[in-house]
Amino acid sequence: MEEMTVNRLELTPKEEITLRITKLQEELMNSQIDGVLITHFIDLFYFTGTSQNGHLFVPAQGEPLLMIKKSFLRAKEEASIDCIEQMLSMKELPQRIYDSGKVKTLGMELDVLPVNNYNHYKKLFSESEIVDISKIIKKIRSIKSPYEIDLMAKSGESIGEAFAQVPEMYEEGMREIDLAASFESALRKGGYGGGARMRAFNQDFFYGNVNAGTSGAVPTYFNGPVGGPGLSPANNPAGAGWRRIEKNEVVFIDYATIVSGYVSDCTRIFATGKLPQHLTEGHKLTLEIQDTALSMMKPGTNCREIYEKSIEMAKKSGLEDIFMGRGADRVKFLGHGVGLELDEFPVFAKGLDLELLPGMTFALEPKFVFEDGAIGTENTFVMTETGPRRLTPEYEEITYLD
Amino acid sequence: MEEMTVNRLELTPKEEITLRITKLQEELMNSQIDGVLITHFIDLFYFTGTSQNGHLFVPAQGEPLLMIKKSFLRAKEEASIDCIEQMLSMKELPQRIYDSGKVKTLGMELDVLPVNNYNHYKKLFSESEIVDISKIIKKIRSIKSPYEIDLMAKSGESIGEAFAQVPEMYEEGMREIDLAASFESALRKGGYGGGARMRAFNQDFFYGNVNAGTSGAVPTYFNGPVGGPGLSPANNPAGAGWRRIEKNEVVFIDYATIVSGYVSDCTRIFATGKLPQHLTEGHKLTLEIQDTALSMMKPGTNCREIYEKSIEMAKKSGLEDIFMGRGADRVKFLGHGVGLELDEFPVFAKGLDLELLPGMTFALEPKFVFEDGAIGTENTFVMTETGPRRLTPEYEEITYLD
Repeated sequence: MEEMTVNRLELTPKEEITLRITKLQEELMNSQIDGVLITHFIDLFYFTGTSQNGHLFVPAQGEPLLMIKKSFLRAKEEASIDCIEQMLSMKELPQRIYDSGKVKTLGMELDVLPVNNYNHYKKLFSESEIVDISKIIKKIRSIKSPYEIDLMAKSGESIGEAFAQVPEMYEEGMREIDLAASFESALRKGGYGGGARMRAFNQDFFYGNVNAGTSGAVPTYFNGPVGGPGLSPANNPAGAGWRRIEKNEVVFIDYATIVSGYVSDCTRIFATGKLPQHLTEGHKLTLEIQDTALSMMKPGTNCREIYEKSIEMAKKSGLEDIFMGRGADRVKFLGHGVGLELDEFPVFAKGLDLELLPGMTFALEPKFVFEDGAIGTENTFVMTETGPRRLTPEYEEITYLD
Repeated sequence: MEEMTVNRLELTPKEEITLRITKLQEELMNSQIDGVLITHFIDLFYFTGTSQNGHLFVPAQGEPLLMIKKSFLRAKEEASIDCIEQMLSMKELPQRIYDSGKVKTLGMELDVLPVNNYNHYKKLFSESEIVDISKIIKKIRSIKSPYEIDLMAKSGESIGEAFAQVPEMYEEGMREIDLAASFESALRKGGYGGGARMRAFNQDFFYGNVNAGTSGAVPTYFNGPVGGPGLSPANNPAGAGWRRIEKNEVVFIDYATIVSGYVSDCTRIFATGKLPQHLTEGHKLTLEIQDTALSMMKPGTNCREIYEKSIEMAKKSGLEDIFMGRGADRVKFLGHGVGLELDEFPVFAKGLDLELLPGMTFALEPKFVFEDGAIGTENTFVMTETGPRRLTPEYEEITYLD
């Protein structure tokens, strides 16, 4: 189809895909699952190189089969899978899969698959038992390859470039949404394909936060430390609001950018004039919490201990009640895995024993939410054999806008 | 909580919520469902006025109960429900609901609820049978109130204002993504809360399309007539790409804006110089298809007949193979319901008998996808007792950018 021009897009190398499929097949053998049927577009992209609408069947042994509904033409250009077929009707699915051999146990992504769709698959695959494969997929995806880390570093650079432009974007008397619009425009021009994905149900969100002063203390549904009013209580009640940015206020900017599919999550703090001491001191403390967390990280470190240390430091400063949110709206983690999605493994959370391993990429986000504004830092890191390496920009002091 | 400032946001009036709950309870009585547990944030907003994280229980008779996990403080300010409680642990859910009376049959949104979450609810509600409530919710939501139609009209005005700015935004040699960034910035400043929601699994998308020339013919996963390359084959492989907009090209712009939660969907066509006749003629034909469709619409019209008429007109012109997409990537509808989501009832589709009723709001989008560009129109309408009324701007001729 000569008019197709996906050739300007970053295509996943064949050897990456082969490696990922091999890891999946090892896990299937270990778990005695005969095959998996992948449908979620993020996982589909990870295991094939395309996120076109379709199904990927990976048997525990043998060749994977990619069946595409729309667009088959595009999937053929993008996917690094040898066997790609067009499949317009779901009815053909069991035949095509059972042809490859007996599938007693079939893995599916039950963490994201809606019940009505699942019931449809259950009828189609009456000869198989459908089991949840999501934990296995999340485990594989949590360890990034050098190729992926390189893309994540580019994503981190891109968000750094947007943050560097904030002083030029800022104009006295502008509304939060005006600054947000400019910031988002810079992200888009830098490659933001959007939008950031959460696997968790009901946790969809839009872009990020530009919140000045008290706006930063408006809580919301999202499982993050800072909410923001947004433009409506409907879709999406978070982030920048209608409020004008006033003099001598803190401006809290937190965005997750997505470049070539990969998220980097970053927060920087700006000020329109002079800030009260509790905000500048609060900010310093979040940098200390971050540094302490980083210094504790060795291959094998328990992520829970990092979270507990941050709580201990917040408690010691007397600011525990506004650490990671206010009161009942506080969240119980310090950081989270990032990659193709924003809620990946590992999580640095209360009561969750997880081992920090080389190749894991994550965001740390110590934040305080004062009545007159949210403050803190957030950076994206990759864990290496010798410790964490930062993918987002070094500079994280408060930037004064006039 | 004095620092909360959601008072600049559009709050749903109490009488709206009461009316919606009443309709729901009538349907429950008719279907012999004892109560529904609403969890999806869009439905939660529709029936309460808040989309904070929580559960709404509506018994077939009696008072609804809203239980909020995060943020309870914010939900109290936004929701027009008398009984709102904080509920931090899901474990408390059965007790609170069974306290209100016997619930033999419990409705849930099984079209969007993931399997793992559902299995958790099944354990919690071992005394109830869980049934799908999504069709009832979609039916109620398909008929908009005058209050909702007013919000949809504001949304339609807002996207019109963004389209009117395109000639100022355009600069020779800019990339698709540059024009998209400017267009999106205008939408955001006009109240775009984002992002447009689809109930269908795997159909999430980002913003819309700016596609010049051959880019408009790049197909994608999305169940719409036009794809676009996007910036990556990963999240999100559609819409504006990296390509520079050249001289004498068609520029296809299609966006869904969301203002106060309500979507309006609109497409307009621009040209950088002179266009070949097949594109200008194709555009004229889409306007004729739209006019014919509108002239057929009376209360009670079968939506399927509108679709069939459009196919007949495309066939007569010899352009059937590129109507609503190219070849195998064509979609089988002419229009779709819009409201709080983008895939609402009614649908003007092949083989689907649906009655067009006053109060329904929908987008019609006759489009041709030529090798050298996508062309067509899209507008959002509300059906009234006397026929369809347009909510998006009247002007829909091709706008020449130099």
